[in-house]
Amino acid sequence: MKVHTDYLWFNTKKRHEFVRITDDIAGIVSASGVGEGTVLVSAMHITAGVFVNDWESGLLHDFDVWLEKLAPAGLNYQHHQTGEDNADAHLKRTIVGHQVVLPITNGALDLGPWEQLFYAEFDGQRRKRVVVKVMGV
Amino acid sequence: MKVHTDYLWFNTKKRHEFVRITDDIAGIVSASGVGEGTVLVSAMHITAGVFVNDWESGLLHDFDVWLEKLAPAGLNYQHHQTGEDNADAHLKRTIVGHQVVLPITNGALDLGPWEQLFYAEFDGQRRKRVVVKVMGV
Amino acid sequence: MKVHTDYLWFNTKKRHEFVRITDDIAGIVSASGVGEGTVLVSAMHITAGVFVNDWESGLLHDFDVWLEKLAPAGLNYQHHQTGEDNADAHLKRTIVGHQVVLPITNGALDLGPWEQLFYAEFDGQRRKRVVVKVMGV
Repeated sequence: MKVHTDYLWFNTKKRHEFVRITDDIAGIVSASGVGEGTVLVSAMHITAGVFVNDWESGLLHDFDVWLEKLAPAGLNYQHHQTGEDNADAHLKRTIVGHQVVLPITNGALDLGPWEQLFYAEFDGQRRKRVVVKVMGV
Repeated sequence: MKVHTDYLWFNTKKRHEFVRITDDIAGIVSASGVGEGTVLVSAMHITAGVFVNDWESGLLHDFDVWLEKLAPAGLNYQHHQTGEDNADAHLKRTIVGHQVVLPITNGALDLGPWEQLFYAEFDGQRRKRVVVKVMGV
Repeated sequence: MKVHTDYLWFNTKKRHEFVRITDDIAGIVSASGVGEGTVLVSAMHITAGVFVNDWESGLLHDFDVWLEKLAPAGLNYQHHQTGEDNADAHLKRTIVGHQVVLPITNGALDLGPWEQLFYAEFDGQRRKRVVVKVMGV
């Protein structure tokens, strides 16, 4: 059994950003030498997420509008009494999820035709990490 | 270490449908010969989900009503400028999640008394797949 | 390859409660002897969740208020025709998620600086379980 660990770093220019990382993960899986198994991709910061959806700019815009509606910035959150201003980012990342596990078959990501993996930043403009753990044979 | 891969196909009659798949996954786990490990069950299409909840028709109806409230169909989504009409399906599947990892203990799914696994279709009436990856010893 | 299974029991005093379990999981990982791998932590009851976020009481209060807004108690849920009164708990746990997979590196949980793991109870005051499955080498 092989276990291979890697990390991706992000420092987005905007506070909110969706960054496609499918190819980065495919590269790490290839480097791992794992032919059959899974890869865990998990945000290590609690105002960021990782999710699978469509690589279509209109839909990504819809996601942004929708998350703002469900978890608005600027409300009178108790978390802000600590000096933070990012409670909404904690909530938004909870909706999209902060990790996925992708299957590996025949040495490659086993994804459906439209599945793309995204890093979802909700409080950016600072350095953050995603951990990548490949396991299998 | 064993890794066993299988796929489930769906083509629901209705646009929205919850399909119980606990027994399908239990069968695949049994066929895999894995005694201790996990099984990843993941929707391969981005308008469908996989989730664990109660096998009770009233609650499944409540889920449908609730998801429609949180992520309504028929809004003026940017995604629809591509000719699609299913932006809400992408959002609904994000709320319920698109994958689960179930533990396998003593050769069987290690589930709580009421845990049932569902395939959640939000844009059906077409062929779609779920990937099943069993890993363990 | 090693696979190690354990369970955590909960019986919260309040109906809603967030219980920090990072140290419990770290202890199980340590006992497993796994140096490189993953640990699945999954609620076995369908009105409870498991999620990763910040250990800050104000933010946990914000989560509680927010979940009540997105999935209110006391509505006329069909599920309640069965005699239950906890449909909202099924929905709330769906938003936060019911399981996480944590990476293990060098024999310890490989977490970001602020990542803490919580058990999220939405219908407590009864005994419930979380399954913990450690896998790796």
